[in-house]
Formats: sequence, C-alpha cells, structure tokens
Amino acid sequence: MLTALDCIPCFLRQALEAARFATKDEAVHEQVIRHVLRMAAEMDLMQSPAAIAQKIHRMLREISGVDDPYCTAKDQFNRLAIALLPELTAKLEGARDPLMTAARLAIAGNTIDLGVNGKLTEVEVHAAFEQALSKPLVGDVEAFRQAVAEATAILYLADNAGEIACDRLLIQQLLPVRVTLVVRGGAVINDATRVDAEATRLHELVEVIENGSDAPGTILSDCSEEFRKRFAEADLIIAKGQGNFETLSDAEADIFFLFKVKCPVIAAHVGLPVGTHVLTRSRPILAPAGGR
Amino acid sequence: MLTALDCIPCFLRQALEAARFATKDEAVHEQVIRHVLRMAAEMDLMQSPAAIAQKIHRMLREISGVDDPYCTAKDQFNRLAIALLPELTAKLEGARDPLMTAARLAIAGNTIDLGVNGKLTEVEVHAAFEQALSKPLVGDVEAFRQAVAEATAILYLADNAGEIACDRLLIQQLLPVRVTLVVRGGAVINDATRVDAEATRLHELVEVIENGSDAPGTILSDCSEEFRKRFAEADLIIAKGQGNFETLSDAEADIFFLFKVKCPVIAAHVGLPVGTHVLTRSRPILAPAGGR
Repeated sequence: MLTALDCIPCFLRQALEAARFATKDEAVHEQVIRHVLRMAAEMDLMQSPAAIAQKIHRMLREISGVDDPYCTAKDQFNRLAIALLPELTAKLEGARDPLMTAARLAIAGNTIDLGVNGKLTEVEVHAAFEQALSKPLVGDVEAFRQAVAEATAILYLADNAGEIACDRLLIQQLLPVRVTLVVRGGAVINDATRVDAEATRLHELVEVIENGSDAPGTILSDCSEEFRKRFAEADLIIAKGQGNFETLSDAEADIFFLFKVKCPVIAAHVGLPVGTHVLTRSRPILAPAGGR
Repeated sequence: MLTALDCIPCFLRQALEAARFATKDEAVHEQVIRHVLRMAAEMDLMQSPAAIAQKIHRMLREISGVDDPYCTAKDQFNRLAIALLPELTAKLEGARDPLMTAARLAIAGNTIDLGVNGKLTEVEVHAAFEQALSKPLVGDVEAFRQAVAEATAILYLADNAGEIACDRLLIQQLLPVRVTLVVRGGAVINDATRVDAEATRLHELVEVIENGSDAPGTILSDCSEEFRKRFAEADLIIAKGQGNFETLSDAEADIFFLFKVKCPVIAAHVGLPVGTHVLTRSRPILAPAGGR
C-alpha cells in the first residue's frame, strides 16, 4: 500500500507526539518537526506509510538520543492488558464461538496503537473491550476458520505492546504448539518487541522470533533472512494491525489481516469506515498456473 | 498568539484540503504539499497561525492558478445560512434575552469554518444551530452587555462566509446604525469578503468595509491605513472567530471575541475545552497611567 498525501499531516502529528514521548525539551520537539518537514518535502510516496514512519522514528531516536521513547507507555499498556486478561478470559469461556470471540478480543486490543493516537487513555482501551463482542466483525470469517482448521505452521505477526497480551487469547485458540509469534526487531512507536513478548509471558507459551527490522510493519526486504524463510514456510500467516496491513497487503502471500480501521486512508483502502473491526484475507496476485 | 508546533500538522491538513478545493489535479495537490513542507521547515513560529496560513494560501493560489478555491463552498454556505434565517429569527423572537440569544446564534454560525474542517457538512451546521441555545456561553457576558449599551461606533469584524448571514441577527440587536461590518480584503479559505456581505445583503443593513488584507484573521500591520484608522476610532470592537482571536488577542485594544473553540491549541490558550462557545474580552496590556 502506497503513502497518500493525507498521511503527511499524520506523520507530523505522530512525530510531534513521539518527540514528546522522548523528551520534555521543546527545542528538541521543534528540531524533530523541522527535520520531518524537510524529509517529508522530498519523500518518495511510492512506499508504504510504515516505511516512511520507520525513517522518521530512526531520525527521532538519533536526534533525541532516546532509544525507546515509548518504553514507559508500552510498559503501562502491557500492565493494563495483563490486568484485563481474567475479565477477557471470562468472556471467552461463555462464548459459543471461542475462535471468533478470541479474534474479536485480539482486534479490540489493536486499539492500543500509539502511532494513531499518542494520547490514548486507559478509559478508551476499556471502552474498546466493552464493545468488542457487540461490534460486527467484517471480512473473511469462514475462510479464516477453515484456514485455522487446516494449518500446521502458523506465523502470528504481532503489532503493539499491550495488544500482544490480548493476542494470547487468540493464540490459545489456534493451539500454541502450531504458532510462532513474530515481534519487531527493534523499538519503534509502541510496537511489540521481544521485551513485550516476555513482559506478557508469551515466550512461555509459544516460540517468539524477531523479524529483524525496526519498521512499524513488516517490510519483507528489510527483515532478516531467517524471518523471511519462516514467512515463506508458514501455511497460515496472521498479521495484526494497520502497519502489517500497509506493508503486506500487496505481498505475494496468503495472509489474514486482523485489525481495527483507525484512519481514513486505510478506511478508503479497505472500503470500510473508521472504527470497523476487520478480518480480511489478502488477495495475492499469483503467477498463472502451468504457464510461463 | 504565537504558532504552536501542534499547528504544523494542521497547516498541512488545511493546505491539502484547500488544494482539493482548488483543483482535482493530484499532481497539483502533491506540489502544494511539498511547497508547504519546505516553507514550514523554515517557518518563524513567532507569528500567529493566521499569518502562516496567509502565506500558505497565497502560495496555493499561485501554484493552482485559482484565485478563490473556496468560492463554490462559500456560496453554498451563504445559501444554507440565508435559508436558516427565518428559523433562527423565530428563536430570537421568543427569547427573553435577545442580545445574548443573537450572540449565541452568531457563535453557532462560527461552526462554518472550512479552515478547521474542510469536510464540514450541512448536517453538522444544522446540529450546531440546534445546540446553540442550550450550550453554555462562557465568558464576559455582562461586560459585553454593558459595552454594547454604551457604544456609539461598533466595529464588527466578520469571520466566515455563511457565518456572516447569522451575524445579521446580532447586528440587528446592536442597532445597525452604530455598526460597521469589516470583511477580509481578499479571498482566503472561506473567510467572508465583500462578495459574501453582498450575497447575504448585509451591505443593505450596515456599512461594509474591507480590511485590506488577505490573512484569515486581522493582522493590523497588514491591513490598510483606512481600516486601522477605523479600528482605532471604534469604541466597541467585536471580533468573530479563531483567526481574529489569534491575530488580535495581544493587540492593545479593547476587543470582545466571539467564537467557537475548534482546536486544541486555542483550547489550551483560552483554558476551555474544544466545542466551547466563548465570548471573551481582550486583556490589553495598557501603558501605565500617569507616566513613569
């Protein structure tokens, strides 16, 4: 998915919020914004928003000297989501359709996206979980159910800290023995890294691997050789969040994307309103069978 | 009022919306955005947001070759507000406090601000008028009432097209014979110009003058000598909208600002939440009386 002009104001907003996560020094905030403006003026729009965000956040870390600006926020939302788990597990125990209930809760967890809203509050997260089971889940639900039934090796691409704690519920439905959980290779926004997988004890449940990249998505060419091998071998790929959708929606792979639509650009791309809980299958352009 | 870093994403958003008002040509949209990014990277933040917006919209008009991108939208909202007048007049006829009721309706009209929201719908405008009389009006209401009772020469600084039609109700309460209506000297965003004053037939009710500037506010140093003379002579100045507040809040003049708080930067500045209907008096820093 390419970057829209509408993404540009959003990059600026995100960069400013990120600078404020990194430091209280307003001179640094201004320096970051002026750098982003200069970068953005020359940017190539023929890349995904996540690829541009990767460059912005690298620059931010360099200017501010802060390796992980969202560290405290990630910790906060990991704790919040862990505290919510008993309540969410109870919702699941009474469910007639535990797989799709768990998918809904995992998508509600995708609300914890500080790239889209750096001012996200705990109240908003609570509200998202309260609405999780009453909101319609739009997309390829039956195809997902079937793919899950048939899969032997499931690659689960995590999105954010906090959210990752809720992914546990869906991973349990998928059967942990079949699942490999993928986190980012470096800190970017509040995206989940190995630290977050361990903070939420997912490493005790499933194998956790890093993708080798610090993009807030999955840019295959920027990921490690090892990750790409696992990606090619998986017979079911589940990708959480807008960043993974932005970077993988055109990939030649069969992927189920689970996310909450949080911005008008993505909304226009998927043809569904902001706020929609989506479970959508990629439509890979496959080479014609049997021919050249 | 100075420009905040938070204004920068908003300038980009506004410039993109303005470019889309000017033309459907996406290449022009991109050209405008890249120009604004370069300008913004070097901008002096020690000026009001309206002063920066003035430069952005001049550049937009130059690049697009369109002198008045919001022309059709201004016409649309003038017509809408004129059509609403009988209903608003009826609300006023039953009012116990016609002056403040008219002020509330004039502030509700300030919703018609395409700089803040280029996607404003007629439904949102209707909703604003429906809520106009039940929303609290915050500020220097009694001081305003007294100033109106004592005034002989009232300078009324209009803000937007559409809104200006609703200003008629307040101007009637102020007594038209005392009022001079001021419009912008050139087209910028959907700010009211002489064309809009005439389209809404206000020129038949009051004297209409232009301020000589194409800023979306009142930058005194950019206004005509003639306007500045009228500004200095007025014994009551009423300034509508955020742009006039941004540019005149630090002026050495006694001004009553009437506007709807529509952005977080203004909200922080006045200490009131977004959405508040405000009637606030300037607090001019006057020279100490009686010399040193």
